[in-house]
Amino acid sequence: MASMRAATFVEKGRIVLTQKPIPPIGPLDALMRITTTTICGTDVHILRGEYPVERGLTIGHEPVGVIEKLGAQVQGFEEGQRVIAGAITPSGHSFACLCGCAAQDGVQARHGFKAIGGWKFGNTLDGCQAEYLRVPDAMANLCVIPDHLSDEQVLMCPDILSTGFSGAERGQVRIGDTVVVFALGPIGLCAVAGARLQGASTIIGVDTVPARLAMARRLGASHVVDFAQGEVVDQVMAITDGRGADVAIEALGTQATFESALRVLRPGGTLSSLGVYSQDLRIPVGAFAAGLGDYRIISTLCPGGKERMRRLLAVVASGQIDLRAMVTHRFALDDIEAAYELFSHQRDGVMKVAITP
Amino acid sequence: MASMRAATFVEKGRIVLTQKPIPPIGPLDALMRITTTTICGTDVHILRGEYPVERGLTIGHEPVGVIEKLGAQVQGFEEGQRVIAGAITPSGHSFACLCGCAAQDGVQARHGFKAIGGWKFGNTLDGCQAEYLRVPDAMANLCVIPDHLSDEQVLMCPDILSTGFSGAERGQVRIGDTVVVFALGPIGLCAVAGARLQGASTIIGVDTVPARLAMARRLGASHVVDFAQGEVVDQVMAITDGRGADVAIEALGTQATFESALRVLRPGGTLSSLGVYSQDLRIPVGAFAAGLGDYRIISTLCPGGKERMRRLLAVVASGQIDLRAMVTHRFALDDIEAAYELFSHQRDGVMKVAITP
Amino acid sequence: MASMRAATFVEKGRIVLTQKPIPPIGPLDALMRITTTTICGTDVHILRGEYPVERGLTIGHEPVGVIEKLGAQVQGFEEGQRVIAGAITPSGHSFACLCGCAAQDGVQARHGFKAIGGWKFGNTLDGCQAEYLRVPDAMANLCVIPDHLSDEQVLMCPDILSTGFSGAERGQVRIGDTVVVFALGPIGLCAVAGARLQGASTIIGVDTVPARLAMARRLGASHVVDFAQGEVVDQVMAITDGRGADVAIEALGTQATFESALRVLRPGGTLSSLGVYSQDLRIPVGAFAAGLGDYRIISTLCPGGKERMRRLLAVVASGQIDLRAMVTHRFALDDIEAAYELFSHQRDGVMKVAITP
Amino acid sequence: MASMRAATFVEKGRIVLTQKPIPPIGPLDALMRITTTTICGTDVHILRGEYPVERGLTIGHEPVGVIEKLGAQVQGFEEGQRVIAGAITPSGHSFACLCGCAAQDGVQARHGFKAIGGWKFGNTLDGCQAEYLRVPDAMANLCVIPDHLSDEQVLMCPDILSTGFSGAERGQVRIGDTVVVFALGPIGLCAVAGARLQGASTIIGVDTVPARLAMARRLGASHVVDFAQGEVVDQVMAITDGRGADVAIEALGTQATFESALRVLRPGGTLSSLGVYSQDLRIPVGAFAAGLGDYRIISTLCPGGKERMRRLLAVVASGQIDLRAMVTHRFALDDIEAAYELFSHQRDGVMKVAITP
Repeated sequence: MASMRAATFVEKGRIVLTQKPIPPIGPLDALMRITTTTICGTDVHILRGEYPVERGLTIGHEPVGVIEKLGAQVQGFEEGQRVIAGAITPSGHSFACLCGCAAQDGVQARHGFKAIGGWKFGNTLDGCQAEYLRVPDAMANLCVIPDHLSDEQVLMCPDILSTGFSGAERGQVRIGDTVVVFALGPIGLCAVAGARLQGASTIIGVDTVPARLAMARRLGASHVVDFAQGEVVDQVMAITDGRGADVAIEALGTQATFESALRVLRPGGTLSSLGVYSQDLRIPVGAFAAGLGDYRIISTLCPGGKERMRRLLAVVASGQIDLRAMVTHRFALDDIEAAYELFSHQRDGVMKVAITP
Repeated sequence: MASMRAATFVEKGRIVLTQKPIPPIGPLDALMRITTTTICGTDVHILRGEYPVERGLTIGHEPVGVIEKLGAQVQGFEEGQRVIAGAITPSGHSFACLCGCAAQDGVQARHGFKAIGGWKFGNTLDGCQAEYLRVPDAMANLCVIPDHLSDEQVLMCPDILSTGFSGAERGQVRIGDTVVVFALGPIGLCAVAGARLQGASTIIGVDTVPARLAMARRLGASHVVDFAQGEVVDQVMAITDGRGADVAIEALGTQATFESALRVLRPGGTLSSLGVYSQDLRIPVGAFAAGLGDYRIISTLCPGGKERMRRLLAVVASGQIDLRAMVTHRFALDDIEAAYELFSHQRDGVMKVAITP
Repeated sequence: MASMRAATFVEKGRIVLTQKPIPPIGPLDALMRITTTTICGTDVHILRGEYPVERGLTIGHEPVGVIEKLGAQVQGFEEGQRVIAGAITPSGHSFACLCGCAAQDGVQARHGFKAIGGWKFGNTLDGCQAEYLRVPDAMANLCVIPDHLSDEQVLMCPDILSTGFSGAERGQVRIGDTVVVFALGPIGLCAVAGARLQGASTIIGVDTVPARLAMARRLGASHVVDFAQGEVVDQVMAITDGRGADVAIEALGTQATFESALRVLRPGGTLSSLGVYSQDLRIPVGAFAAGLGDYRIISTLCPGGKERMRRLLAVVASGQIDLRAMVTHRFALDDIEAAYELFSHQRDGVMKVAITP
Repeated sequence: MASMRAATFVEKGRIVLTQKPIPPIGPLDALMRITTTTICGTDVHILRGEYPVERGLTIGHEPVGVIEKLGAQVQGFEEGQRVIAGAITPSGHSFACLCGCAAQDGVQARHGFKAIGGWKFGNTLDGCQAEYLRVPDAMANLCVIPDHLSDEQVLMCPDILSTGFSGAERGQVRIGDTVVVFALGPIGLCAVAGARLQGASTIIGVDTVPARLAMARRLGASHVVDFAQGEVVDQVMAITDGRGADVAIEALGTQATFESALRVLRPGGTLSSLGVYSQDLRIPVGAFAAGLGDYRIISTLCPGGKERMRRLLAVVASGQIDLRAMVTHRFALDDIEAAYELFSHQRDGVMKVAITP
């Protein structure tokens, strides 16, 4: 059996490049040859042992590539087509999928940390930081890339763009809204772009890294707030004349950002939460208006599936958003350990890396 | 100036019947002669000093009565009509009202405990545990009672029914849903009824008081769970074959009920929160699926305004719900201190009391 | 190859029982042995040549039966299980399915009469008025029947109940609404039940057949209107004190019912259309308030898929609805031609027939 | 009593400038001194007798000006403030307002042409093509203009912008959608801008006037279609690879545009109708998929009220849209008859005129 290289979780603190067999595929699967992929903040959580996965698992959930081989039952695609698949790969036929909650596909009603059934690549199945990837339920998940779009133009679609936009979408941002985005990493930056795309008039990005604040402005923020320059809630209230935000998007996963997001809301406002939390959260009773504030707290997992990918590709193709500047560093797959080293320490102004097998 | 009797907050621990002037009214107000009112759990919070109001305030926010006098600019009503007004009295012309968040009418973006602008009776204005009540913005708030409905039939409309139903409405309960209601006081019981009215197939009421569990069954619960008989989450999971609930309604205002409500949800489910909390809340990271569970946490303040009251009266008039059995005790206004004594200690199987001036 | 009996469309005016091979199945299919099925009004349209299908097609789209055989790739089911499948069988993996419009699965953007891709049984694939049925995309479509429910209890789930309820659901019927249902055949009756399940307070059923008006009352109508006794719109306005309806459900497919449904709406109301129309529709400019009435006209095709079936079975199992009385006549499959004769002429007070192979 | 000049409907074909008393105001009203206003296509319908109003009525519903005087009960504003009011002036306290349908405020359930209760200026009350305007329910309707915005920058907010945006909003345009806008007059152009603001990726403007097609591109159309160059539906299908549109916005009020809007929809798509129709509409049965296409047809009247105005001003202030180029001609109020002459004949490339008393 032919073999390939793959970034593999060995143990806490070690993701290493190993040789593995090219994955066999079943009748509903596709084998994708990866041409570009990237590293996500979640992968760093895995590296650090903060999010548990099986030892030996191939990491990575943001695949761009080419269809190498199609399962016997897969229709509607051809080998050789350039495709992406979402980080989340719904089957299409689960109860979750059919009730409008595709990202939770396959989830059992467990109460532990891993009840995230729709996230399979680099979580419950081998991922895409490798030469080849088995894509399950290919008919529901592969999406053809328009010829004129480069790999790097679409590299954010499987996860970052889908997640970031969903912060604005699930928050139901409307024309004329005031939106505050807490933390301007790649997902927060895409949330800024999403809020702008949904018509928010006042978009306030919160971070402290100058490059991120600048990028937020390029992607549509009307204001930026440096949390190191004073109490965030006060700064937001000053910008909004005391009115507060219609929607606050949390894009980090900490108590501080979650709580500030709640505190900046106007009565009746929505906290749209995208972060991955590693500790219990506290809702201060005052910030929650004792339960009487008509607040909504909405958490969202990255939407996947080919229709989602089709829409995001349409957004990129239309020129509404261009995230190429977000790719600050490039590595061959052979150098992925160095890429992890750089990315996990957030050195050298890194935003996202492109990995090419 | 003519005087009247009114239940007045004197200090922590003391609500007493006093003599006060009949309130004067302005051009947009109405003076309502109260024929029946009741005591709410929130009033008990006020009595105990857990929810702060001004000393000297008349308490009570559930008015049933007759229009005694109309302000000069009030059109569409006649003196002598039997009317109710909601516990929450939106002006109709505020930004909050005009953006679909009428219950938050008049709220400033304050972060303290009292940012509940739409709740005025017995909170920021004199309330209705009195012979007379000034109703502000009468055109937006008075609603005529159909002749064939008695005071006690409509007594729950201003608050209990409106709040309870909103738990199901804001939770977006759908035909075929599984709904769990935590705590079966008057509001939780109305939430059960609301879930039934919106078509839930499996409705699980959680409490431990036999009379409440029995009343929940009468109002539409398909199952009841006694939390004293075992871990609630396990009991709910057993009933739902491990699937969990589409919607969980919290109707008490404690950490235990809030947390259990979160834990029984299926991925993608909704926690609809009605309780008034007096302490910070904790969201366990596992129960929140680390932020990746597509959960929604929705808090709701009792909807008010005459259109809301009109709908609730239509529900009562149609015979879809009959809450007369919930009125377990009756007092004259002169005896309201005894009513508080009984109600605040939940003695003698009391659910709701009727107070008649 | 083993053969079976099947009701087959031969030509306009002739659906006859013929011998056919038992259908072979592919890896994603299931073979269902039909134990009970029924005839739908749409089948009568096919019989009369008003809705075109291929000659030789097996008719029928309401299957109740047993899994005879599972395709090699089908997981989550076992042979021998009692199951139903919806009249509409989404694949789960199409763009339509993944964008929340599963009933339009597989539809091309054609503008002709048959652009109804999700409806396959007895339309584009052989149907279930036969001994055996091939179910495509079995994982997305089969739903196990609880043991304690009889075939006749669940016989309406695949189409009639799903369609009727969707009239209320897509019309967004709310607690306290006034709803008018035009035409009280099986679908209109289920729309009445759906409106009741969603909490409407005033439900007005419109027809002229006494048995249907009586059944509507049993299923939840608070009022019935006999259109032969006077102008329908006037009768509805009298019942609603001139206010009009929040939602009007059209359940027949004619200009008269469509137009009346529009005329009874309050400004801002919703016309929820379920009928299959065979002629162009006219919207009178006055009834449409010249385009300025904030009206919504929503048309809906029967929702399918296993999650929909699961919910409907939950409704039936909960006792919220019992449609057994709707089955007025029973036939063996061998006598299906007589069943068509009876049903197509609406003789003998027939509502629905049960067909047992 | 002081007098003023006002454009008055005298009879079919004649709107003339007359002298009238400055309107007296009641306690809830405001008197607005008009500084800029405009003429709407609807005013031309009135001029031609196609939309009936009382003889002697002052025409005009797009007021920009200064608060001259406040009624005794009006709070929250000061005389001398620069303000706008919407074309539609909800009271805030009607049943319609309180059920989320403020544009239909005050409407009775009449079935005639004029059941448009929320539209008062120049319809049921004297309008703003005059020196002074009485604004009813001032607290619900006046909105202060930010100092740095000129009259012409905000002139479209009361009607054109509010209506055009509502086409995208009520159509529920989403990120990545394909939207077609039929007719690129001022409202259609604002619908293009609205679709862009809500994140549509493909926006196809349909008209034949080159200046309008060019303006559509400036406001966000990705494609334009000249209906004189070939069948519109075919052109749209070619652009969308046969997929059709998610949302089609009708912005004229004719059978041809309405029908084309329906025909370009994908199954499950939405026709968002803004036009004022003067004749019955026909829905071709094929284009409607016989009622089985899951289509939605939504008609919308311009949303009004101060919260709506506040949002639109926020959009203008943020620089997301600049409609000054739409004002192609300017007239003094004294010359308004000439303005009508120009505008009603659409001479000289007119889009909108500014009228300054």
